[in-house]
Amino acid sequence: MVVVMTAEANAKEIERVAAFINKHGAKAHISKGEERTIIGVIGYKHQVRKEHLSTLPGVEKVIPISKPYKLVSREFKKDNTIIPLNGVRIGEEVVIIAGPCSVENEKQLLETAKVVRENGAHLLRGGAFKPRSNPYSFQGLGEKGLKILRRAKEETGLYVVTEVLEAMYVPVVAEYADVLQIGARNMQNYELLKAVGRIKKPILLKRGMSATLNEFLMSAEYIMSEGNNQVILCERGIRTFVEYTRNTLDLNVVPAIKKISHLPILVDPSHGTGRRDLIEPLSMAALAVGADGLIIEVHPRPEEALSDADQTLDPIAFKKLMQKVHHYLSWQQSYLESNVEASEIEYI
Amino acid sequence: MVVVMTAEANAKEIERVAAFINKHGAKAHISKGEERTIIGVIGYKHQVRKEHLSTLPGVEKVIPISKPYKLVSREFKKDNTIIPLNGVRIGEEVVIIAGPCSVENEKQLLETAKVVRENGAHLLRGGAFKPRSNPYSFQGLGEKGLKILRRAKEETGLYVVTEVLEAMYVPVVAEYADVLQIGARNMQNYELLKAVGRIKKPILLKRGMSATLNEFLMSAEYIMSEGNNQVILCERGIRTFVEYTRNTLDLNVVPAIKKISHLPILVDPSHGTGRRDLIEPLSMAALAVGADGLIIEVHPRPEEALSDADQTLDPIAFKKLMQKVHHYLSWQQSYLESNVEASEIEYI
Amino acid sequence: MVVVMTAEANAKEIERVAAFINKHGAKAHISKGEERTIIGVIGYKHQVRKEHLSTLPGVEKVIPISKPYKLVSREFKKDNTIIPLNGVRIGEEVVIIAGPCSVENEKQLLETAKVVRENGAHLLRGGAFKPRSNPYSFQGLGEKGLKILRRAKEETGLYVVTEVLEAMYVPVVAEYADVLQIGARNMQNYELLKAVGRIKKPILLKRGMSATLNEFLMSAEYIMSEGNNQVILCERGIRTFVEYTRNTLDLNVVPAIKKISHLPILVDPSHGTGRRDLIEPLSMAALAVGADGLIIEVHPRPEEALSDADQTLDPIAFKKLMQKVHHYLSWQQSYLESNVEASEIEYI
Amino acid sequence: MVVVMTAEANAKEIERVAAFINKHGAKAHISKGEERTIIGVIGYKHQVRKEHLSTLPGVEKVIPISKPYKLVSREFKKDNTIIPLNGVRIGEEVVIIAGPCSVENEKQLLETAKVVRENGAHLLRGGAFKPRSNPYSFQGLGEKGLKILRRAKEETGLYVVTEVLEAMYVPVVAEYADVLQIGARNMQNYELLKAVGRIKKPILLKRGMSATLNEFLMSAEYIMSEGNNQVILCERGIRTFVEYTRNTLDLNVVPAIKKISHLPILVDPSHGTGRRDLIEPLSMAALAVGADGLIIEVHPRPEEALSDADQTLDPIAFKKLMQKVHHYLSWQQSYLESNVEASEIEYI
Repeated sequence: MVVVMTAEANAKEIERVAAFINKHGAKAHISKGEERTIIGVIGYKHQVRKEHLSTLPGVEKVIPISKPYKLVSREFKKDNTIIPLNGVRIGEEVVIIAGPCSVENEKQLLETAKVVRENGAHLLRGGAFKPRSNPYSFQGLGEKGLKILRRAKEETGLYVVTEVLEAMYVPVVAEYADVLQIGARNMQNYELLKAVGRIKKPILLKRGMSATLNEFLMSAEYIMSEGNNQVILCERGIRTFVEYTRNTLDLNVVPAIKKISHLPILVDPSHGTGRRDLIEPLSMAALAVGADGLIIEVHPRPEEALSDADQTLDPIAFKKLMQKVHHYLSWQQSYLESNVEASEIEYI
Repeated sequence: MVVVMTAEANAKEIERVAAFINKHGAKAHISKGEERTIIGVIGYKHQVRKEHLSTLPGVEKVIPISKPYKLVSREFKKDNTIIPLNGVRIGEEVVIIAGPCSVENEKQLLETAKVVRENGAHLLRGGAFKPRSNPYSFQGLGEKGLKILRRAKEETGLYVVTEVLEAMYVPVVAEYADVLQIGARNMQNYELLKAVGRIKKPILLKRGMSATLNEFLMSAEYIMSEGNNQVILCERGIRTFVEYTRNTLDLNVVPAIKKISHLPILVDPSHGTGRRDLIEPLSMAALAVGADGLIIEVHPRPEEALSDADQTLDPIAFKKLMQKVHHYLSWQQSYLESNVEASEIEYI
Repeated sequence: MVVVMTAEANAKEIERVAAFINKHGAKAHISKGEERTIIGVIGYKHQVRKEHLSTLPGVEKVIPISKPYKLVSREFKKDNTIIPLNGVRIGEEVVIIAGPCSVENEKQLLETAKVVRENGAHLLRGGAFKPRSNPYSFQGLGEKGLKILRRAKEETGLYVVTEVLEAMYVPVVAEYADVLQIGARNMQNYELLKAVGRIKKPILLKRGMSATLNEFLMSAEYIMSEGNNQVILCERGIRTFVEYTRNTLDLNVVPAIKKISHLPILVDPSHGTGRRDLIEPLSMAALAVGADGLIIEVHPRPEEALSDADQTLDPIAFKKLMQKVHHYLSWQQSYLESNVEASEIEYI
Repeated sequence: MVVVMTAEANAKEIERVAAFINKHGAKAHISKGEERTIIGVIGYKHQVRKEHLSTLPGVEKVIPISKPYKLVSREFKKDNTIIPLNGVRIGEEVVIIAGPCSVENEKQLLETAKVVRENGAHLLRGGAFKPRSNPYSFQGLGEKGLKILRRAKEETGLYVVTEVLEAMYVPVVAEYADVLQIGARNMQNYELLKAVGRIKKPILLKRGMSATLNEFLMSAEYIMSEGNNQVILCERGIRTFVEYTRNTLDLNVVPAIKKISHLPILVDPSHGTGRRDLIEPLSMAALAVGADGLIIEVHPRPEEALSDADQTLDPIAFKKLMQKVHHYLSWQQSYLESNVEASEIEYI
């Protein structure tokens, strides 16, 4: 930390701050500048609290230098985290997760699962427990939905991603799901984060709609601090003043996170735009920016979907998207192979 | 709902939309304008889904007209909801809730409780279960903290407000607390909302940091739809681009909510600013804008507080604030009494 | 400035940064911490550039310590700036500025001016040159509008505030206006700021709708750096995700600015809410938070106004507001007089 | 427009709204629903004003249906606007504009211009008049900078893009520049927009940092309404709560605008991220999302640049970026040719 004193701070106040720092076991390093004095705090994290220093007389502000997270950072673990799952190595290869917003019934899910598998996606998504802003809306089929997901897995071989809403449901969801999803609204539900941190399955952690990068990574740190290292991040759009899309997809965050964290990060262009017609271009943009995969909403008949119809692809549009994705990935592969120099300037 | 067709939509597309509406039991009311056709949907809510209409060819957008909430609205219940609690009638009189961010130990809490009571506050707040963005930070004393709160209540007679983080903890927290708080990060934790909707104690619901007015009210609707009508709303600042305060306190929301809802709404200037020196002016502004009360962080020695030291008043500053609050409320009372005309233009 | 090195930065990189700082005439002050090294830059502003330091190898980030503004700051000038104008001392007494959004014709303006004067407002506002987002909307009467403003001044004795849109119009607007307004959309129109910095009349500078506190003050600094010290700031709402008001009125900014600047700051609850029914409560909140005055839109018949009808008071509502304002200000005066201790904890 | 009445509105209020609409020459179309009445307004734009309707008793809100813009819309002009310039057809082919933030001196600009040309960019950018938030920062070389740009054009054949800050400078800038840029801070400087609307050169219009899609298009409409159809839009990042990048690049806006407007839209990843290391990935994403081109800051020695060093590529990084861009564009071309079906699902 660096303590910035006010321009008017006197010698006694400076002295008191230094004494406070030293008393807590850290070292105060005073720099008197032309306009004001700054005091570096040298020591281990948590010896002195930022908020306490800021209460002392003569202190203008306290600037943290150390990062609050540890396990999620590249400084702690240099190599990308790779999560192998049913033949795809997430973090190394682009993974495609697709399926309906909600599991509605067996017919709908099996139909979707076949479309998903035929077009080369790797995992099937589908909500059994749904977090709906309206208490009178369809809330999901619950455990019945989980059973339908299992049937779809048996029929298609696709592994299953589904959301868990609450710590006490973690055991039952973990029984059926291969990957447990933490939704955006629960990104700071710390009891839930701790609960999924204690299981042995990969966790797909969606960014909260107004989460800073630090808050996003700290939520991943919660999961990892309980012993589960298999965390997959997911950007799904943030809330801004913008009115023509449901959210603003923040693709800047993808390379920003790849620089400071070893965790894989996916992009959800369905929620990130809220508009069916924008899913394809933003999917391609997500791959171009370096995302480790996509999560896409697909429904056999969007005009009948029980949720998120506005942002769901039908099978034809999904097929076209996947053709383009595969074509693009081949190009990217050939570009990287042909261009040793270029590959070296990839992040990290 | 109103369906807006594109300028190019042809007669067949318009017909199909009308047929879709009629098929679902509502009535389509077609208005052909100079530039485009719009179709009113007349009927009861949920007969036709907005998202489904928007998937039909020729539809540009669908605009909802009905409000998504019911129980929380003034259209449903015209008079203010009043919650009598230990001698104060919340929703009718200004209520002051004060106390430390976290319960740290018995000495600290009792000391604070006395300051709170002596200065005329009505309820004591204090966190036993703390939602911290950092997994390595102090997480609260848990049930031990609840017991300390009970001791403070026994000693001072102050009723107690404390946060509950998770549906399964509702019974234990409800055993000790007089008012259960749902924090901003849990405003859309629907399992938790449903759980507190099933108890018989007042719920203090804090606005999520990027919650729209509709989302905020829908979360209150969740609680009420389970049978608990004693919901107290609380504005605590929203997340914006602003960097000089922790959050941007949105006082516009107070009269905006009072117009459309009968629920009381408090303001939390501690979280709404994140700065001790701004608590007093924003407290006064909150009362001036019509808030039903304040929730203020107080600690005997902020420079030793285990959380939120930056936004906590010490006893002297709290005393000064309360003097000003009481003086202001007397003026307001005399103004309303002396000025029949003015009192009539108050909201509602 | 403080240069934070990456955890991996080596001795050579640290040395190079220090040499770069010394080469530019400043002094490098190296602090080796447990996790990383930080380097304080000691010297005068502008000797070394933040952006250049950040391009050097091994640098993680560069944190500015000095403030970018000077003339506007309380460190530079301790006492409040007071601008005496037609009997009101802005910065010392609460000033009320009122009038229509646009000057439409002589009758409308004179009618409004009388209402404004009778209710005790100090200045008359009215737009002659209007910045409209729609090129096909009414753009104001131009110089003809200025002449009508002068007529109103002659008839009522009210001084006049009006907006100037462009550097080349400054002379003509200054000929008629007593205070020149810079609108929110022009807060960073630096040519215009420099132009009004060269005249001798007070400038009312509105905050841009996404301006940070630093940007706001830097725009005032532009005006002052050209020699005009009579700058009046005005908060008028910022752009956020909120949808129930046109803007989010940021009252936090008022005491935040009063701490670091000596300039007066007004609040515009008309633009800050965009809703007629919210003007009164937010006006009272603005006074309670310490604003130096209000700027309010008033029109004899809002349902005929050529602009901003949604956020304009009619004469009856304005009268009621002003009664309440005057009543409140008397209370505040008596409170301050009766309470020496309280008055001492006002800002500064 | 659609007028939504309150649930309590009575027959007389409904009648009055209808009469108001009819009086202004439009037709009122009343739909009585189960919960409330809505009234469609049928007629030409501007016959009745939204704000006036909203002042009438019993009106809850007024929802606009028609779009405020005309000339910029695809409804008005179906085919893409194509602007041929020095051999590149903007709007049909991807255009690359590159160069330093500021023109600093002849040597710097010529050096950069050569790098720009050698790597296949089409236009040279460089600021002669600089809008700086700090009045004490380098403000650009002014007309001397324009002359240096002309020299660079003579030497390299590259056409020149440069910013104009103020209406009265339009003639002089237009004498030297091939494309005039309106910066983000001036997007709503309507006098400037009108002034560049009267010249015959292409205008590069940058989105304001908190501009909605409508506001952005309305600013383009200003230029077109004066007779200049050669408008090139540019997304350059919006202001959000995000702290790890200077702005949040909103790539959603690119396909959203392509659907409703015929104007070309570029992306500026330098300002959109503010971080050198993010320029390449976001450039690739911009092309993938369908942008018509890129505008990139390049400087021979960023560590000496007088502005924007943080977001400027050096010649080596620019070369690598351009190699990847060209490789990608070849792939895209081959994909479109090989895949008739895919090309048909492009926007429009």
